[in-house]
Amino acid sequence: MTSELTTAEQAALTSGSDFWQTTGIAPAGLPAVVVTDGPHGVRMQASGGDLLAGVPATCFPPAVATASTWDPELLRRMGEALGDECRAMDVAVLLGPGVNLKRSPLGGRNFEYFSEDPILTGVLATEWVRGVQSKGVGASLKHFAVNSQETDRMRVSADVDERTLREMYLRAFHRVVTRAQPWTVMCAYNKVNGVYASEHHWLLTEVLRDEWGFEGLVVSDWGAVVDRVASIRAGLDLTMPGPDAAGDQQLVDAVEAGTLDAAVLRRSADRVRTMVVNAGKREPGGYDADSHHELAREIAGRAIVLLKNDGGLLPLRAEGQTIAVLGEFARTPRYQGGGSSQITPTRLDDALTRIQASTSATVTFAEGYDDPDAAARVARGSDVALVFVGSAHETEGADRDSLDLPAEHLALIERVAAANPNTVVVLSNGAVLLTSPWESAVPAIVEGWLLGQAGGSALADVLFGRVNPSGRLAETIPVKLADHPSYLDFPGEHGHVRYGEGLHVGYRGFDARQTPVAYPFGFGLSYTTFAYGTPTGSGLEITVPVTNTGDRDGREVVQVYVSLPGSAVRRAPRELKAFANVAIAAGETVEVTLHVDRDDLAYWDTRLNRWVVEDGDYVFEVGASSRDIRGTLTRHVTGDEARVPLTEESSIGEWFADPRGAQVLGEAFATAMASAGDSTMAAMAADPGMMLMMASIPIKRMASFPGSPVTADTLEKLIQAANE
Amino acid sequence: MTSELTTAEQAALTSGSDFWQTTGIAPAGLPAVVVTDGPHGVRMQASGGDLLAGVPATCFPPAVATASTWDPELLRRMGEALGDECRAMDVAVLLGPGVNLKRSPLGGRNFEYFSEDPILTGVLATEWVRGVQSKGVGASLKHFAVNSQETDRMRVSADVDERTLREMYLRAFHRVVTRAQPWTVMCAYNKVNGVYASEHHWLLTEVLRDEWGFEGLVVSDWGAVVDRVASIRAGLDLTMPGPDAAGDQQLVDAVEAGTLDAAVLRRSADRVRTMVVNAGKREPGGYDADSHHELAREIAGRAIVLLKNDGGLLPLRAEGQTIAVLGEFARTPRYQGGGSSQITPTRLDDALTRIQASTSATVTFAEGYDDPDAAARVARGSDVALVFVGSAHETEGADRDSLDLPAEHLALIERVAAANPNTVVVLSNGAVLLTSPWESAVPAIVEGWLLGQAGGSALADVLFGRVNPSGRLAETIPVKLADHPSYLDFPGEHGHVRYGEGLHVGYRGFDARQTPVAYPFGFGLSYTTFAYGTPTGSGLEITVPVTNTGDRDGREVVQVYVSLPGSAVRRAPRELKAFANVAIAAGETVEVTLHVDRDDLAYWDTRLNRWVVEDGDYVFEVGASSRDIRGTLTRHVTGDEARVPLTEESSIGEWFADPRGAQVLGEAFATAMASAGDSTMAAMAADPGMMLMMASIPIKRMASFPGSPVTADTLEKLIQAANE
Repeated sequence: MTSELTTAEQAALTSGSDFWQTTGIAPAGLPAVVVTDGPHGVRMQASGGDLLAGVPATCFPPAVATASTWDPELLRRMGEALGDECRAMDVAVLLGPGVNLKRSPLGGRNFEYFSEDPILTGVLATEWVRGVQSKGVGASLKHFAVNSQETDRMRVSADVDERTLREMYLRAFHRVVTRAQPWTVMCAYNKVNGVYASEHHWLLTEVLRDEWGFEGLVVSDWGAVVDRVASIRAGLDLTMPGPDAAGDQQLVDAVEAGTLDAAVLRRSADRVRTMVVNAGKREPGGYDADSHHELAREIAGRAIVLLKNDGGLLPLRAEGQTIAVLGEFARTPRYQGGGSSQITPTRLDDALTRIQASTSATVTFAEGYDDPDAAARVARGSDVALVFVGSAHETEGADRDSLDLPAEHLALIERVAAANPNTVVVLSNGAVLLTSPWESAVPAIVEGWLLGQAGGSALADVLFGRVNPSGRLAETIPVKLADHPSYLDFPGEHGHVRYGEGLHVGYRGFDARQTPVAYPFGFGLSYTTFAYGTPTGSGLEITVPVTNTGDRDGREVVQVYVSLPGSAVRRAPRELKAFANVAIAAGETVEVTLHVDRDDLAYWDTRLNRWVVEDGDYVFEVGASSRDIRGTLTRHVTGDEARVPLTEESSIGEWFADPRGAQVLGEAFATAMASAGDSTMAAMAADPGMMLMMASIPIKRMASFPGSPVTADTLEKLIQAANE
Repeated sequence: MTSELTTAEQAALTSGSDFWQTTGIAPAGLPAVVVTDGPHGVRMQASGGDLLAGVPATCFPPAVATASTWDPELLRRMGEALGDECRAMDVAVLLGPGVNLKRSPLGGRNFEYFSEDPILTGVLATEWVRGVQSKGVGASLKHFAVNSQETDRMRVSADVDERTLREMYLRAFHRVVTRAQPWTVMCAYNKVNGVYASEHHWLLTEVLRDEWGFEGLVVSDWGAVVDRVASIRAGLDLTMPGPDAAGDQQLVDAVEAGTLDAAVLRRSADRVRTMVVNAGKREPGGYDADSHHELAREIAGRAIVLLKNDGGLLPLRAEGQTIAVLGEFARTPRYQGGGSSQITPTRLDDALTRIQASTSATVTFAEGYDDPDAAARVARGSDVALVFVGSAHETEGADRDSLDLPAEHLALIERVAAANPNTVVVLSNGAVLLTSPWESAVPAIVEGWLLGQAGGSALADVLFGRVNPSGRLAETIPVKLADHPSYLDFPGEHGHVRYGEGLHVGYRGFDARQTPVAYPFGFGLSYTTFAYGTPTGSGLEITVPVTNTGDRDGREVVQVYVSLPGSAVRRAPRELKAFANVAIAAGETVEVTLHVDRDDLAYWDTRLNRWVVEDGDYVFEVGASSRDIRGTLTRHVTGDEARVPLTEESSIGEWFADPRGAQVLGEAFATAMASAGDSTMAAMAADPGMMLMMASIPIKRMASFPGSPVTADTLEKLIQAANE
């Protein structure tokens, strides 16, 4: 308990002592502990170095890549390894994972986030947190919440309706909090519907703690706190960075003035203390840099998505096939994004070296971007041409303004493809790039994301078939930017960004509008092929036999999308609700069983202010991507009790749609008709067109009309009778 | 002045005495006066009849048709005629025009509204009001505001951001109020951002009266008032229908209890009195039903839009060409929509009779919908087949759920088109219908909307070329419903509809997303052709020579769309800002001059809370439709002074973007760097990536960071200096 601490000591505990450490309170035996970035490596600021220079640590693949593995088990192992590195570097809390939805492909920090889908995001992030925390190190679930852009990120208000907020933008946070209890949650810079996340009581206390049962502490994003008193009242516990003596003093003054409840400060100080005490329990440790590098390579290999492979150009043969490697990214890998997540890697593999090591045939390299003609000549003289291109940069702090490859990369592809029909494009990028206009000119495309320090090896593994690609898109690749659901409202202006597409984020929007896409969510090729049998199941369990029909072992990601035709609320045509990542040996059949959580079928009802599972026949689509459905199953799900009480604002139509309301109001109408005979309302009621109009009239409004069969006097009794 | 009236008399004056009359106050010599629906005819309820049975009056074309004329002069003449009919029927106020934007093509009342564009709507409605009021009869501009749907219309909250509200949904209201001063404005049923329009002080008083200078009275839509006291406080003057003795008493009680300012009630009563007094000044009149019928025919003919005319199939010849007329709509015309605007016409022309009268050749009719095979046989035996199809119904009170033709109409087209290659589809519909999948199967399509009582004659006029078609689409015909900007958010649910597409209503959204359409906004063919010369001009006046290059006199609608490349705010790719409807004789050239109002270039700045014309090079596209641009002109427009003062919440980027701010802050930075040397912030400032991140930091937030070059102490002085 911090109650033995002075108010000043409590206040000091709720802000950092420097950029990366909490404030130690020596008299209470509380040391300063280190919290540091994440999420795909441990970024310990080198002493005396600038903010972005870290001591060497394993640079694992960023979330854009790990999400493409669709494999929770890999995320857990990565989390464990990160936990070990934290212990080795005496880090108490690693600042990750980042579970913001990729609302727009332009988001500058998308490479740090998982997906446009909240279930995929939540499942993967949960395992990351479990892995890290299994080592006695805390995670920091971020950025809470709706921090979907870099533009004006420290002020912009994400204006989003509650159903969208609940079902899309908070869903992954909810999943991770309730299933993995991260030690900390990091509040975002931005405002949510006009209120700073750092001062958002509803968000930080009512939702996060009261509804979800979060037990840890809320730390600010670095510089997210505007007003220490307002923040601590809202439920923010630890303000970073520090020191902030002036802010600490404001808290003390507020307590003394009686404008801040002393218990509120004490509670936040307690939470910091608990975190510090827990951090003290972890044992010092070390880690084996080589084995972590190998893990980074394994994950990177599993993250690569084979988008196109016409004529089986890939995998490459290890001999007898001369190879042109073109593009500087093959030699100087682009393997992580800019900003706070930037890691100084322990080693760095480049694709060129690993390709050379993979074949006995001649490998010729040209840098390509500055001199595409030279690259084309090299391509012309080789059996296969590998073109390494990608995004110029993605970084925290700035959104992109285009999904196009840089002009010199486009030129390189064009020249090489013209020179050699066996051209493979290998992409390095932190968020989706358009594959037009060059897609049709090349037979093979390898989506290599940002793959971390072992990405070069992983790319060679996939190109030569040592790893059979099984990565799947966690974000849709659109035909053009203007097709994207978020396009009209990104990044907003004048301090506001309206989430105009609502629930229809990512594939949900493309599907709702029946918009063609370049490559759909969930898509990814393999060097083998899989055939699906007929799905069966009982309840919310679905079983489908999947056969590897090729001659090479591989992995398939079986996906289950759910819809509810005739739903009382607007829903996307299909929503991912379960998936399974299974290894299937050549020629083998595996019975894949997937379980859909009933809770995941619920929608947020804004009238009842709670989740509601509708009663109905749900359609379960089983497929290899969101647009490659292999089988369908319909199952009845018994819904929640969700009667909306009838009130004076309920419409006549709603009264008649409710069994009890229909009875009560029907009797009142009959009585009125019988006695009034020729009254205006009776005449109206006899006209079908008028009845249609009447259906939308709130009953109290009707009661105020001349000649109404319901009057202000009788209405109260009707309401009571209807809700009995 | 009503100050001589008792409070009770004043209260009584602010509600109706029955469905269609105000309350007379005999002691004050104030008669009850009649207000009645509109907008395309005078619907006087027949005494003893039910609500929808009216005494005969001219049924002019509904707004869906009049808008397609793109001719303000026709609207004025129609208004004058309506005014005459009001005088003849002793009507004080005619309830129209309806100027709500057509947000969705599904809107059930779209046939009563003009367009998806606010300028076109505003220009036409202004002339309608001028016409009516020139006869001493009042208009009622409705439904104020954002009443874009019928679903849940009496409760639903239209959730729309202020810029969209101002630039799109209020714009036509603003235009009509400021240019034509309608006697009354009718407040809508729905809520606007959570507040009933009938209780919306900002809407009814701050915007309508204080900003726009509206001098008339605000009347409720019938049944729109929930709370008399709240409404009168918000600025609603007259509650309809009546009687509402209980509500009148609530006003009296509130005044006596001091919860309602007596002056507020007196002001509303004064406004009703002024209206009644003004109504008393009009002279009784009559009208010539035949000449009004001819006017209705003229307008209808000008409203018809020729969508397709391959091979010059139209116009039909008056002899030697046998004609099959297929579809019951030819005999039983669909000429108006359902609900409060329904008129009992003085006469009713059907197309079949008028076609028969137009040709000396054989005309054969088949009803078609129930027996398409019989119709196909008739078609096979004729030179030309005219297929009359359309929407089953459009009515107030219900939105549509599809843009498809009824199945039996689709079947009719299919059979007839297969039987006769010379098939003309004639559409009757209150809002757009899809032209797929049948469009490619027929050589000619005539969009006949709902044309009022003389529509049958008008259709024959166009089909036989007595009228050369010049109607233009006032709403986009999409390829499919899912393409429509409003699609994801119509009609909302649980009491809310989010205007998710924001500014991108109608063609603005299609253009922004580069979505193909079936027929674009502004489109319409003629029996002749027009060639455009090069546009020239000075200031905001544009002149373009247009030549009728055919051998038939015709009319061209020249349209000017404006954009501002590089605008500081999001804008649609093009917005209609001016148009001219010109008659051009065969072979003649007319210099068409169009004037763009500078005010119409403004956007609503939510930071400054006012309209701002940006400084810049505006692009003026001159064309025959929104997707048929014939010439472009760029003109510099000097912008408004619109500096946003720098505050503690302004970002570092904003400080440096402001000349004075850059100077002041630059000096502060230089001083800090010089003295701090190795401070963290100085190190950050030296790193371009960090500078990028810094640009988005609000200056006060930066001041709270350790080592900041600006401190809380110096900030206030900096702000003063920057804004001096």
